[in-house]
Order: sequence, then structure tokens, then C-alpha cells
Amino acid sequence: MAIFRNNKKDERELGFGSQNYRKSVRFINKDGSVNVQRRGLGGFNNLDLYHWLTSVSGTRLSVFIIISYTLVNLIFGGIYYLIGAEHFDGVNHSSEFQKFLSLFFFSAQTITTLGYGHLFPISNAASSAAAAESLLGLLSFAIATGVIFGRFSRPQAHILYSKNILIAPYGEIKGLMFRISNKKQYELIESEANLTMSINNPVNNKREFFNLALEIKSINFLALSWTIVHPINDQSPIFGLSAKELEERDAEFLILIKAINDTFSQTVYSRYSYKPNDIVENAKFRPLVPEATERGKIRVSVTDIHHFDAVV
Amino acid sequence: MAIFRNNKKDERELGFGSQNYRKSVRFINKDGSVNVQRRGLGGFNNLDLYHWLTSVSGTRLSVFIIISYTLVNLIFGGIYYLIGAEHFDGVNHSSEFQKFLSLFFFSAQTITTLGYGHLFPISNAASSAAAAESLLGLLSFAIATGVIFGRFSRPQAHILYSKNILIAPYGEIKGLMFRISNKKQYELIESEANLTMSINNPVNNKREFFNLALEIKSINFLALSWTIVHPINDQSPIFGLSAKELEERDAEFLILIKAINDTFSQTVYSRYSYKPNDIVENAKFRPLVPEATERGKIRVSVTDIHHFDAVV
Amino acid sequence: MAIFRNNKKDERELGFGSQNYRKSVRFINKDGSVNVQRRGLGGFNNLDLYHWLTSVSGTRLSVFIIISYTLVNLIFGGIYYLIGAEHFDGVNHSSEFQKFLSLFFFSAQTITTLGYGHLFPISNAASSAAAAESLLGLLSFAIATGVIFGRFSRPQAHILYSKNILIAPYGEIKGLMFRISNKKQYELIESEANLTMSINNPVNNKREFFNLALEIKSINFLALSWTIVHPINDQSPIFGLSAKELEERDAEFLILIKAINDTFSQTVYSRYSYKPNDIVENAKFRPLVPEATERGKIRVSVTDIHHFDAVV
Amino acid sequence: MAIFRNNKKDERELGFGSQNYRKSVRFINKDGSVNVQRRGLGGFNNLDLYHWLTSVSGTRLSVFIIISYTLVNLIFGGIYYLIGAEHFDGVNHSSEFQKFLSLFFFSAQTITTLGYGHLFPISNAASSAAAAESLLGLLSFAIATGVIFGRFSRPQAHILYSKNILIAPYGEIKGLMFRISNKKQYELIESEANLTMSINNPVNNKREFFNLALEIKSINFLALSWTIVHPINDQSPIFGLSAKELEERDAEFLILIKAINDTFSQTVYSRYSYKPNDIVENAKFRPLVPEATERGKIRVSVTDIHHFDAVV
Repeated sequence: MAIFRNNKKDERELGFGSQNYRKSVRFINKDGSVNVQRRGLGGFNNLDLYHWLTSVSGTRLSVFIIISYTLVNLIFGGIYYLIGAEHFDGVNHSSEFQKFLSLFFFSAQTITTLGYGHLFPISNAASSAAAAESLLGLLSFAIATGVIFGRFSRPQAHILYSKNILIAPYGEIKGLMFRISNKKQYELIESEANLTMSINNPVNNKREFFNLALEIKSINFLALSWTIVHPINDQSPIFGLSAKELEERDAEFLILIKAINDTFSQTVYSRYSYKPNDIVENAKFRPLVPEATERGKIRVSVTDIHHFDAVV
Repeated sequence: MAIFRNNKKDERELGFGSQNYRKSVRFINKDGSVNVQRRGLGGFNNLDLYHWLTSVSGTRLSVFIIISYTLVNLIFGGIYYLIGAEHFDGVNHSSEFQKFLSLFFFSAQTITTLGYGHLFPISNAASSAAAAESLLGLLSFAIATGVIFGRFSRPQAHILYSKNILIAPYGEIKGLMFRISNKKQYELIESEANLTMSINNPVNNKREFFNLALEIKSINFLALSWTIVHPINDQSPIFGLSAKELEERDAEFLILIKAINDTFSQTVYSRYSYKPNDIVENAKFRPLVPEATERGKIRVSVTDIHHFDAVV
Repeated sequence: MAIFRNNKKDERELGFGSQNYRKSVRFINKDGSVNVQRRGLGGFNNLDLYHWLTSVSGTRLSVFIIISYTLVNLIFGGIYYLIGAEHFDGVNHSSEFQKFLSLFFFSAQTITTLGYGHLFPISNAASSAAAAESLLGLLSFAIATGVIFGRFSRPQAHILYSKNILIAPYGEIKGLMFRISNKKQYELIESEANLTMSINNPVNNKREFFNLALEIKSINFLALSWTIVHPINDQSPIFGLSAKELEERDAEFLILIKAINDTFSQTVYSRYSYKPNDIVENAKFRPLVPEATERGKIRVSVTDIHHFDAVV
Repeated sequence: MAIFRNNKKDERELGFGSQNYRKSVRFINKDGSVNVQRRGLGGFNNLDLYHWLTSVSGTRLSVFIIISYTLVNLIFGGIYYLIGAEHFDGVNHSSEFQKFLSLFFFSAQTITTLGYGHLFPISNAASSAAAAESLLGLLSFAIATGVIFGRFSRPQAHILYSKNILIAPYGEIKGLMFRISNKKQYELIESEANLTMSINNPVNNKREFFNLALEIKSINFLALSWTIVHPINDQSPIFGLSAKELEERDAEFLILIKAINDTFSQTVYSRYSYKPNDIVENAKFRPLVPEATERGKIRVSVTDIHHFDAVV
């Protein structure tokens, strides 16, 4: 049985090497990230910081900002305290701690360029430190503006994948099928799909990669849903392989979607992967039924893409 | 009569499914939006907010900003009032309401980092709240900067479509024609057009989609106007169909234009659709007559693209 | 003599129509702008404003900003004056004009969120107006930030074109040649050129357009200079035409260059056009001689691309 | 021996001319910059400034900002001093120098829109100058915001190249090989490589360029590493050339990599070049061994791409 009919060159073109890890691995995680950790990269630099700030969750970013703001004010409050509270007018001298607190608030009023003026520097040293802090403040908020715009404008595809990948009847033969839909109200146009299988070869003990041909590779509008089908004909590398064999060989189905978000004319990418335990044999997707509303709008429920029915 | 000669595959590639809605529908609205409402999308998140803020009308955005600004100051004014007006210097104590108003204005002076200083916090609690508000203010205006830049820099094509789509003489045969022009003074280059017909099939009761071949698919400069022509030869899916039949089968002519705004080197998209009541038979477009001005400039009136003359 | 051998379809694909203007016109100006004025465009909107602000000269932008700033402060100064100078503390009451001036400066201190605090509102009406002005100020500077970033990041190609277009010996035949170079120190990569001739046809009295085939259509690095050559073989639409005939028929040579600025990975466009009076016959470009400096740098003088020598 | 079998046209398409510099030169530096200096470019303008500000090192940018900030405050401090210290309230009059210092700090408080208010203008002249300075301040920080966002969002590929380029056994023949890896944790997708050799031709004394065919030209994920191989078959322009001959003819191997950073959907470019002293003959790269961690992550050490072993 000649399972692997595809060109071996495909293997190298994906870029995941040919190592057999001797245990079950996945190359792409369910969240679309590539499951590879590169070491020896050298130090964390500004670009890494920017990548982190633009891709971290909103909650973590908020905590990061609040901690940074407090920390910077503690540092500048400390510097002003070292310069001496007597270099400032309006400081509350009731205790040493209260003096520090006054200078901490003075720092906050300076870094935000608020400057009420009931607290103000009266010596040259204090004025210089405050002038430096206000410059730092403006630059920090310039950075914050850049990061916030970077977060907003970051190209993202919000694609919903069916929970399962089915082996369903497809004309005379069978087909490997999954469905996708757009989770957002904006439009994704010119969507393209690519499906690759990664599998252990029991003969040479290497990990091999096969591109799986698709019935339709692209779609103009991802308006309703898209059922992506690999026909399992005798040219297919999975022709004759059972779900059990796919599991034994630790197969992984890697999906790459490329589309254009036409609101911002941005090319967006989405990745996903199915492992053998996501396969359902002898089932077919229940058709999605869009309906026309009273006001002439076509309405569809995207979460229905997960539904399938057994085929008897 | 074999009406539907095109490849059936086209139907699936457009992404609007094959459902017959049993009443008249349109897939693309006159304003270019896709007439599909997706449900079950999950919560409204930051990205949705950004999409909304960048694509909403200027008037609505202004109202949104003014209400938000007032609301935030009411909230912070309330917080300061709960902390106690005696924690602030400069507050007008003539009445409880006047105290609140003073603190409302103090909030506005804090969130904008204006900080006149005739109103200022004198306790640690009040100073802390003000420090937090000024941080919030700066971050909000960072967001506003991002949104405003996003609105300005959003890729947009301002294409004017002729009010009608004509069935006009075209050489020996007839052609389906409409005209477009650029509504703006900046240039659109490398424009491409795509014309698809969506129509009910009375035999199988499905909605079908046909790509209509164009005489010229792209144009270097959309400098004057562009008459887009589908020749109705015997290869055409509308060959032999009258306007009345197109109406009975609820036809829709879907137009996709893709171009480059060369000021910002952005790819821009425009969509439009004609329904059978937009068709005019036996008419042809009146030629657009550009003229050379005294100063050597070529001048054209773009709204003339709507004009047509009956053909006897 | 069959001059016009090219496909007539080319004419329509450029998008400049086929009108003969009966006097000398040019479609593309020396500065690369398209010489077409579209009328009936409808009102000037935000997008037009953004286009104007990002493409206007620095001097004009400065004047625009200074006038706007003064005007807004005059307006708000006027509003404060109408509310009444007694609603503000710190106003100089020496004369009515001086009162207005104080309020004008108060406006400037408010819109910039400077807020020294020696001038401040003491009534609710004055505080409300000031709160509105400071919001307006922040939004205006958000817009300014967007415009300034838009100006900086706008894709631009700074290409230098040789002053003349030559008809020079090219192997056994002649060639139409011009040279370009990059005026900036950053790199332009993957440059592509397109050359079109626009010419009156004396037979049918129409303006026709011909794409002129190029010896090399693209270049990896525009590091030194690029001589773009159209070989005048018997396939060429200008084969057998003298410079005098080109002038009589009001020819124009339209040039489109497309390249990538790799610092910002932006696709940039440049346009230029030569008219018959720019043609020099029987001349060839003097070779550009780059030299290796002491420090191993290759140095070239880009303005040398204008030089040519007569061919005897 | 016919060394140079490739099409001569390649030479002109790279854009580095055919000049023989009579001494060893390189066209691309190790840091990827093009080793060409263009003169006669005309003045340094805003775009050049923006390019400089976005690509200069962080340290240099900080020094530039601090010096500019100090300089602007010295200038405005000087202007205020010329207007006269008596036009301001709150100035320390203990000495002429102290007066200037007070006005220098007043300038800093004005340009940052801090405005404590213990120092404030009391004449119209002083108020006007301060109003102008605060406008300048806001515009400067708008520019700073643009520059900072430009720095962050600038498309950059951080590709690690193996220190050496090897002539290693490749099947029956030999191959010219080097390895690359992604230095960052984000993903580079759709990577493409191009390898060109620049070499002196001893016959015609010109510099010639040859595109070297690659075994695989593109890779989907640069997840682990990529060994780029030029098979030295009898079609190769380096077939039969020894390392010594390559050195005598001052060969240079120019590498262009193009990829997509999928976090920002940006096309990024990387360049590198090897000279003959980087060649190692009869050696092959030691295979990179990624391993699966306990938590199922695939881990690879990217700096291992430099390692190679002698072939006996």
C-alpha cells in the first residue's frame, strides 16, 4: 500500500523539519500559535516589548500600566525626597512619611503635566528634576499612544473553526471536511485556505508533511460559512488510512487561512490544527440555514457550524 | 434554452450559499455593505469598539465623545463628593449642589491635565483619586488619538456608480453596461472590476451565482470615467433573458471594485449592486466630454456619468 | 506605413479616454500629478481635509496651524468676554481691550491644557466653557498627531528623472532612453517601470495610447542609476517617426515607476512625462562612474544622470 | 572552461552596474545595508529626518531628545529674558543668572504644558510668547508620538545567518550552503530567499552578477532553521571554481530574504553577504536537534546554526 504518494519536497517547504519526537507533539496550538520555542535569541529589546504590549491581554496591560505608573512616581517621589522636601512649596510637613507622600503626589502631577501648582519646586535642583520628569511623562504617553494604536490596528482574523473534522461522504468517495465562519460583523474577503498533514512515517522513523488538495481553495466573501473539503481520492496521502492509524502515527492537520479585512484593507492570517481525537468518522455537517428577516436582512447563526449528524 | 452555461463551481466560490429565500433579497446594499447579519458572535470587544469608532459618522462620534466626557466627569465628581468637599481647597461651599459642581469642574481640569490650581486636593485620598484620574485622562486621549488616526487613514474608495445599468447595443450584439467614476480629486490606479449575477433557478429552486465576463477587467487610471461592459453573447448566462424574466427570478448584479489610492499606496475596495428595477433597456450612455481648460488642465464633470439616451 | 501596430485595447486600459483636445495637452505633469480636474465631486469632507493636510507643503501647514490656533483663541476669548470678565479671576481690568486680551491668553492656556492658574474661571458658566475648550484642545492635538504621523509615514518615491529623453544608438537599431536614480539615501527595491506613449491619430482624429516595450522592466536595487530603454524595432509604434512628427502629433511619453521603500516596506509610485521638446536625437548618455572610497564605500553622484554626449 | 554560463541580462537587473572597482569591494554590508553612498541628493528634508529618527539607535535618539529639549528651553528662556524678567511673576531675582534660570524652568513648564503657575506671565508680550511656546510644545510631542510609533511599527526581520557559507557534499555533487533562523519569538511566514553572486570577470574586466539557483526558494514557517542550498551542478556559474579563485576574483554572495511577520502582517526584508573568507570547504552543517519539552513544546537553540563539522 503506497500511502505517501506526494512529493517529498513538501516536507521541507513547511519549515518544521523531519524530526520524529518519539512522543505525541503538535506544531500548531488550538489558539493558532506555533508550538515552537526558540532559545538563544539574545536579549529582550524594544521590538519584543512592543510585540508583548500589543498582543498581551487588556487586563495584563492595565496591571502593567498601573504598576509602572506607581513605580515611576515612587522613584521620582524618592528623588524629590532625597533632594529635600524644603526645596518644594506646599509640602505637608506633619511627618516624614507625609512629606514623602506629598512629593509622591507632586510627581504624579508632574509626570501627567497636570501641575495644579499648590505644590511646586522652589530650588534649581528641584526644578531641574521636575523638568526632566515632565519630559519623561510626555514621552511615556507618546509610547502609550503608539502601543494603543498598535493594539487597535493590529491585523487579526477572528475565525471560528468547527470543533470537529469529519470524514464524510463526498460524492462517490469520502472527504475530510471542516467548517469555518467569521466571528465578527466586519467582512473577510478573498479568503484562502491551506491544509497540511504532519505524520510519522513508521518506515524511516521521520516526521513527514503532506499538502492536502482542496476542492475549493478560495472564497470571495466569508459571509455565511465555508466548508473546506479535501477529497480522499486515490491521490490523497490519507487514502486507505483509518482514524486509528492516524492516531498511531500521531497525525496533525495544520490549517492556514489568509484573508483580507476590508475595513482596513489588511491581510490577516489564522491558524488552527486538528489532532486525531478531533476526527469524527461517518458524519456530515448539518446544513447552515440562513433566513431573510422582515427587514430584508439575511441572518445566520455562526455557532451552528459545529453541528453534524451521523451517517448511517 | 440553456440559460445557465457557466461553471457551477462559481456559485460556491462567492460565499453566499445556495439558499432560495422565497422572497426578494439583496446580498449587497447600495452603500456597499454586505447584507448579512451574523449571530452568536460572542461579546462586543475592543476590536469591535475600534471598528465602530473608526467607521461611525462624525456626528455620532462627536455625540459619543461629549457624552463620555460628561459621564466620566460626573462619575469622578461623584467620587470626589463622596471623599468629601473639605478634602479640596477652592471649592464653592454655597450649597451641596454647588459643591458637587465645583468637584465636577475639578474633575474636568484633572482629566484633561489642565490643572489651573485654584481647585486642588489637600488630603491623601483626594490626591490619590486625582492622580488616578489624570492617568485615565492621558490614556483616554491616547485612545482618541489612535481612533482619530484610524479614521483618517482608513482605506476608502469613493466611487460613483451610474444610477442605472443599461442593456445597450454593443457592436453586433448587446451589452450590459454601467459607468463608474472617482468622486475624489486623488488618483485611483490599477482599478479592477468584477461583476457577478445572483439569480434564482426555477428548476432546482436554488440561488445561483454567475461570474459575468467583462470586456476590460482593469484600467491604469480612473482619471475620467470607466464604462464597464459585459458583452451579452451566446456564452453569457443572461443571453436571451428579458428584463422581466430577470425581475421574476429576483436577479442581483453584484459589483466589486478594487483599486489603489496612490497617495497612501492603499488597496481600497468598493462594492455596489443593481437590482432589476435599475435596468434600462435600449439605451446607451451619453459620452462624457472632457475639455482642456485655458491653463492646459483637462476638466471632466463626473456626475455626467448618470446620463443616457434612448436608442431607437 | 503602418505606424500603429499595437493592440487598440491598450488605449482604453490606460483610462484617459480617446478625446482629441485640438490643442496641446499633457496627461501627467512634471511633478507626477495627473493633469485632470474632476468636477461635481460634492462637498469637501474630512478625507479631503486629511489628504490636503498630509500632502500640503510644510510652510503652508505651519501657516494653517498658526492661523487656526489664533482664530480658535479669538473665538473662545470672545465667548469668555461675552460671559463676562468678572466671571474670571486674575483678569487685567485696565481697559476693555486688555480684558479681552487676558481672556484670549486664558483661552490659549486652556486649549493647550497649560493652565498656569493665575487666570481661572470662578463661575459655573466660565468653568463649563473652559471644560469644553480643554476637551476641544485635546482632540485637536490628537488630530494634529494623526496628521503629522500621516505626513511622515506617507509612501513617497523620490526619483530623479534625466532632464531629457534620448533617441540613441542601441545595438544595430535605435532606442528611446531615459535614466532614473534614487534621490534619497534609503533603498528602493524591486523597482518596475512602465512606458506609454499618448499621441494624436491624424486619420481618425482620436487620441491613442501605446504601451512601449522595455528592454528590462524591473531592477532589484535602484542603487546607482537605471537607464530605461525602449528598443525602436519594427514592432515599435514609434518606428519611422521623426521627432518633428512626434511634435506635430502632440506625443507624450508617460512613465510609471513602482518600487518598494524597504525601510518601511511600503510600495511607492512615481510618475513623470516627457513631451517632444524633451527629446534629444543622436545623443547617448554619458556613463555614470561610481568609485570606491578609501573606506570601501561605493560612491556615485546621482545628478550626473542628466549628462549626455552627441553621437556623430 | 566556460565559467559564466548564465544570462548576461541578470547583471543589469540587480542594479549595481558593471564597474570593476580595481580593489576589493562589497555591495552589501554584514548589517544588511547597501554599501552605496549617493551624492548630489539635495538638502536634508523632513522625510530624511523621519528616516533618521526611526532608524537611529535608542541611545542616540535619547541624546538627541535631551539635547533638543535643553536647547529649546535655553532659547525660550533667552527670549523671556530679553522680554524682561519683570514681565513674569514668581521669578527669583537674586542674580541675573538666577533670573535666567527661573525663566528657563518657566519655559520647561510651558513647553510640556505642565504650568504649575508659581511662575506666570503678567504682560501681553510674555503671555504671547508663552502661548506660542505651548503650541510648539504640543506639536513637538505630536511629532515625538509619530516617531515613536514609526520606530515600533517599522517592519523588521531579525534573521540570524550562519557565520560561514559551506561548500558541502550534496547528493552526488557539491552544494553551496548557509543556514538562517529567526532571532525572535514571533513567527516569520512565507519566507523567500534569493542568492546572487557578484564577481570580477578577468576577461572583459567587468563586474558581473549571477543569480544562483536554489534547491528550495521558499518555506512556510521559519520555525526552526532553514538551510539554503545552491547545488553546484554543471549549470552553476561557480562550477569548477575553487575558493582561491573566488577570492582572486573578489566574489561576493549577496542574499536577499523576504518574509511576512504575521503579528503585524508586514512584509519584511533582510539582506546579508558573504565574502570568500567566509567560505569553508569540505564541511557540512551539524544537524539542529529540536526536542519536545515536558509540556509538549518543541524547543530549538537557534545559535546552533553556526556549527559545522569537517567532512573527511
